[in-house]
Amino acid sequence: MRKMNPVAVSKAAINDRFWSPRQELVRDVVVPYQWEALNDLIEGAEKSGTIANFRAAAEGRQGEHHGFVFQDSDLAKWLETVGFVLQQGRDEELEKLADAAIELIGNAQMDNGYIGTYYQLQKPGEQWENVRDDHEMYNAGHFMEAAVAYYEATNNARILDIMCKFADHIVETFGPREGQLPGYCGHPEIELALVKLYKLTGNRSYLETSRFFVEERGRDPKYFDVELEKRLAAGRKERVDRRPMDYFQSHAPIREQGTADGHAVRAVYLFAGATDIASEYGDESLLSAVKSLWDNVVQRRMYVTGGIGSSDYYEAFSFDYDLPSDRAYAETCAAIGFLNWGQRLLQIEADSRYADVIERVLYNGLLSGISLDGRSYFYVNPLEVWPVVSGRRDDIPSARTRRQPWFGCACCPPNIARFIASLSSYIYSVNENELYVHQYIGSQTEQIFQGSSIAVRQQTEYAWTGSVKLEITGGQAEFALALRLPSWSQRTVIRLNGAVIAIAAITEKGYAKIQRIWNEGDIIEMELDMSVALVRPHPELREASGKTAIQRGPIIYCLEEADNGANLRDLQLSSEAAFEGAFVPDLLEGVYRLESNDAWRTSYDEVSTELYTTKRYAKQHAKAVFIPYYAWANREEGEMTVWIRERESGLQ
Amino acid sequence: MRKMNPVAVSKAAINDRFWSPRQELVRDVVVPYQWEALNDLIEGAEKSGTIANFRAAAEGRQGEHHGFVFQDSDLAKWLETVGFVLQQGRDEELEKLADAAIELIGNAQMDNGYIGTYYQLQKPGEQWENVRDDHEMYNAGHFMEAAVAYYEATNNARILDIMCKFADHIVETFGPREGQLPGYCGHPEIELALVKLYKLTGNRSYLETSRFFVEERGRDPKYFDVELEKRLAAGRKERVDRRPMDYFQSHAPIREQGTADGHAVRAVYLFAGATDIASEYGDESLLSAVKSLWDNVVQRRMYVTGGIGSSDYYEAFSFDYDLPSDRAYAETCAAIGFLNWGQRLLQIEADSRYADVIERVLYNGLLSGISLDGRSYFYVNPLEVWPVVSGRRDDIPSARTRRQPWFGCACCPPNIARFIASLSSYIYSVNENELYVHQYIGSQTEQIFQGSSIAVRQQTEYAWTGSVKLEITGGQAEFALALRLPSWSQRTVIRLNGAVIAIAAITEKGYAKIQRIWNEGDIIEMELDMSVALVRPHPELREASGKTAIQRGPIIYCLEEADNGANLRDLQLSSEAAFEGAFVPDLLEGVYRLESNDAWRTSYDEVSTELYTTKRYAKQHAKAVFIPYYAWANREEGEMTVWIRERESGLQ
Repeated sequence: MRKMNPVAVSKAAINDRFWSPRQELVRDVVVPYQWEALNDLIEGAEKSGTIANFRAAAEGRQGEHHGFVFQDSDLAKWLETVGFVLQQGRDEELEKLADAAIELIGNAQMDNGYIGTYYQLQKPGEQWENVRDDHEMYNAGHFMEAAVAYYEATNNARILDIMCKFADHIVETFGPREGQLPGYCGHPEIELALVKLYKLTGNRSYLETSRFFVEERGRDPKYFDVELEKRLAAGRKERVDRRPMDYFQSHAPIREQGTADGHAVRAVYLFAGATDIASEYGDESLLSAVKSLWDNVVQRRMYVTGGIGSSDYYEAFSFDYDLPSDRAYAETCAAIGFLNWGQRLLQIEADSRYADVIERVLYNGLLSGISLDGRSYFYVNPLEVWPVVSGRRDDIPSARTRRQPWFGCACCPPNIARFIASLSSYIYSVNENELYVHQYIGSQTEQIFQGSSIAVRQQTEYAWTGSVKLEITGGQAEFALALRLPSWSQRTVIRLNGAVIAIAAITEKGYAKIQRIWNEGDIIEMELDMSVALVRPHPELREASGKTAIQRGPIIYCLEEADNGANLRDLQLSSEAAFEGAFVPDLLEGVYRLESNDAWRTSYDEVSTELYTTKRYAKQHAKAVFIPYYAWANREEGEMTVWIRERESGLQ
Repeated sequence: MRKMNPVAVSKAAINDRFWSPRQELVRDVVVPYQWEALNDLIEGAEKSGTIANFRAAAEGRQGEHHGFVFQDSDLAKWLETVGFVLQQGRDEELEKLADAAIELIGNAQMDNGYIGTYYQLQKPGEQWENVRDDHEMYNAGHFMEAAVAYYEATNNARILDIMCKFADHIVETFGPREGQLPGYCGHPEIELALVKLYKLTGNRSYLETSRFFVEERGRDPKYFDVELEKRLAAGRKERVDRRPMDYFQSHAPIREQGTADGHAVRAVYLFAGATDIASEYGDESLLSAVKSLWDNVVQRRMYVTGGIGSSDYYEAFSFDYDLPSDRAYAETCAAIGFLNWGQRLLQIEADSRYADVIERVLYNGLLSGISLDGRSYFYVNPLEVWPVVSGRRDDIPSARTRRQPWFGCACCPPNIARFIASLSSYIYSVNENELYVHQYIGSQTEQIFQGSSIAVRQQTEYAWTGSVKLEITGGQAEFALALRLPSWSQRTVIRLNGAVIAIAAITEKGYAKIQRIWNEGDIIEMELDMSVALVRPHPELREASGKTAIQRGPIIYCLEEADNGANLRDLQLSSEAAFEGAFVPDLLEGVYRLESNDAWRTSYDEVSTELYTTKRYAKQHAKAVFIPYYAWANREEGEMTVWIRERESGLQ
């Protein structure tokens, strides 16, 4: 068996011009707003009913459940977000709210440990009869994650006790033994949550049950069919359901899947959990199965923005190289699951290919999901929009040109909030003798090497500049400082205390590993190549054939009608376009804007009403103005595109 | 009021290498097959029940209607096709079948003249209560058209009597007078049919009722709402129906529409009927409204193949320049209605812009609807297909990569059959002193000018060659022979008895009008420019930005995977591509095939598994092979595209 290289996640205090305002937004705007939403205090918003459901359950009432079967998870995600926020800094007021919510959850908990207001209120006695549809363990998983985050912030044992009791009930109920249900949840989530709870508590039964879920899933006979038969035999009312087995990740055991199929969020949540299992058990063959799935996604099913799950059809992965720009689904929650998954693979094998993808998702397809003011959200993240289409074709019912304040199905807004609050886990990793820097975000982390406490302080104006400065403080210790060399940087310079160091010889899996005895005051400076790049798609990616996307640093750019007028498909950019760029503080909360005068568009001089012509219309020079993709749809409504037609110059 | 220039349709005996086999196919294959289908004699085919419905109605039975509410129209379309077939040549066997069917229809007719097996069998007494949904007058219209065609072929008065009695009942039931229903059918068709019946019988009430339908439609209060209220008041069971008013062409009176909206087939059937009304009443303002709609379609909402109704969403026109290639709906029936409409405008104003569009539809978007062997049909006619997509995205549920044998909703197959059988009406028009040649199809027509019977015999290998020869026989007479100058022909030469004539001076609205005393044996020879053209879209047509379509003569070409391998979007064609072409008798029942060596595709030498790269992949020369679009999907399944990326050479 190959030796794995586990690198624990390391938390870091973030102090960053790009990210800190976003974390503050979550703390100051999103968390209070969500709390009001959960309590139905927002005028004009769709009723949530989440807290009301828990009150009713706590009081032993019945028949009054509001919202979706996964409504409970909204409270869980809020609580987890609060946990991450409190990890950044305690807040008495907020903790009071959260503690009250925890009490409410505890009061709603059944004697056997079960928590689930939908069944408690509407179907008492029918718990676990329909694990395919009813998200009971999905909700449980989110509560377990919340418990871990909140405990780690506050040492509050109450939520942990509640959730361990719930976990114990699940561990007892599900499994391969006589009298247990050999089932698994229709929406993966609990797999990774049980591993988190195991890591915190050391209770190995949580890990074992998680492994059972991962391995049992998709085996024949399909559990979802088995339980359906049981429900029918019990005379339960059933709707016809045409969703395919891969929607539920139950089409095949994960080891046999090979390609990433079905509902994208479910898929990547499962893959993240399976990666945990592979890691905890040192299971090489499972790891290899998961890595094949990763390769399939990254090499064939991922947008240039890092978005995944291209198809509106069951919110699913579709097939290789099927990445339509206007019909993109690319759900925000799928981006989050993708980050969770990549993060886990990165801890097993510190290879920059994982961290590069994480970075791609972070600065593009994830961040596009939330407006700059934190008050509105995209569920779907298209790469091209022509507003007149919205609502005029039934094939992209979900693609909107404006972010929405909240959703009936509110999965994405609380999910992106909790992700941003948890960002500090994505920056560094450590093991006994290595400290990895995966992401360039202003922050400070403390680690102990050979008994010495070492602090690393990272300063940077990333992603607008490519300068990163790392300063070592604390005691003396020998370890390798491993700096990710982003694949987009064509030329990277690293200086150690002012002297350029030769990178090639010390580079391993995309990280420059500087091994030495570090001393207080050592300074590493890194300069990344921030020149603007024209990105081209693989030739099989039909939707973008002949087109190019603009990237600078980790940021993928787009064109908006606000800057470029309408009909963006008519615009062409020269293969050898030159760009001018500048950071514009008052544009879109501060972005680095790009311009090129090497663009062309059709001259309308000869254009008549003829729809088709043999004429070859003359083209005229035009200026193209690019803004970061994540910042689109924060001004007036209009067209947007990431891919622009490339005007090939210097044809061979 | 502007003087109209009515030009009557002239029938012609077709003897043409391109079209005659297609007419024979309809006669020898399609008509017998359809008859068996109507009689439920085809093993494995979906049950039609059409004849069974009529039998049950004739026997006064109830409660056994099969199929759609418009199932009766299948028999009507068959009968009309038979009428057109018999106009080409009588056939005792076939007439026997048809006469028996006519008897059956007559026996099913109610005493008040009503025919409609759905209501007779399932809802007796509820006739005309739901004209929005139930197609009673749509069916009636098809029967009236059948009556006219069959009568004109056979002088059989029986079907005419039956249908006049039905028409009388409708005329009595619908109209503005006290006691009449101020309604109109949810699916236009009867408007143009009543005009046909009026023209044959001279019964002006048919014309007046047709005008009522055209003018009343879309006025407030909307009749469909009024009748719905009545049904609700009568306690009828109603489903919720979200189809918008424009689906039914009831969103606005036709004079106020301005743009072609809603269900494309309904729209163009109405527009054709309205054009008839404008013509019959000399109604300039109605004509002007209809012509505006025509311009809107032709200048902004028509595929390069002549297909219309781009949206799968309610089978509708969508909005200006929204012409997606892969998601094209472009229903075959819409193409037929478009031809009917254009034909009517052409008779009012002999302008080649109508005949040019008719030609575009004929050789491309219409003909693609039927397989070369006449046994399978497309309902939807996309301009681009990537087979792996089929069934993998819900947004194009109807686009198929293979034609289907028959449909549950069998509107298109019998419709294309009846159209092809009726083709002879599209070739010539005459008025007192002009004979127009609109389409170049081997045929012979006889007309009387100044008492002399003149025969014009047209010989051509069109559309494969651009040589057309017209020979005059019969007596001497003075008239203008008006030859359409197809807009795609850059250089047209016309010879009269061997001598080139100057075209420019005698050209009017796209027709070269040769005015003279014609004599037996006069010969006109026309040479059209058959060079291959690169067609470019209007710059607002985003879906085809930077792409070109290949046209030779009236034929739009496509690329198929069978000739070019997969990934057709990767292929580029030089702006200045040279072509070689040849007629290949054993390819696709004989087509003129085109090849160009000035194509390029990505060289895979440097292509790795990377989905995105800053590399600019080298391109390599490739050969592109083009076949006529109409003939696609007659070989193995594969990709197809009409639009190909243009590789611009000689950039300015």
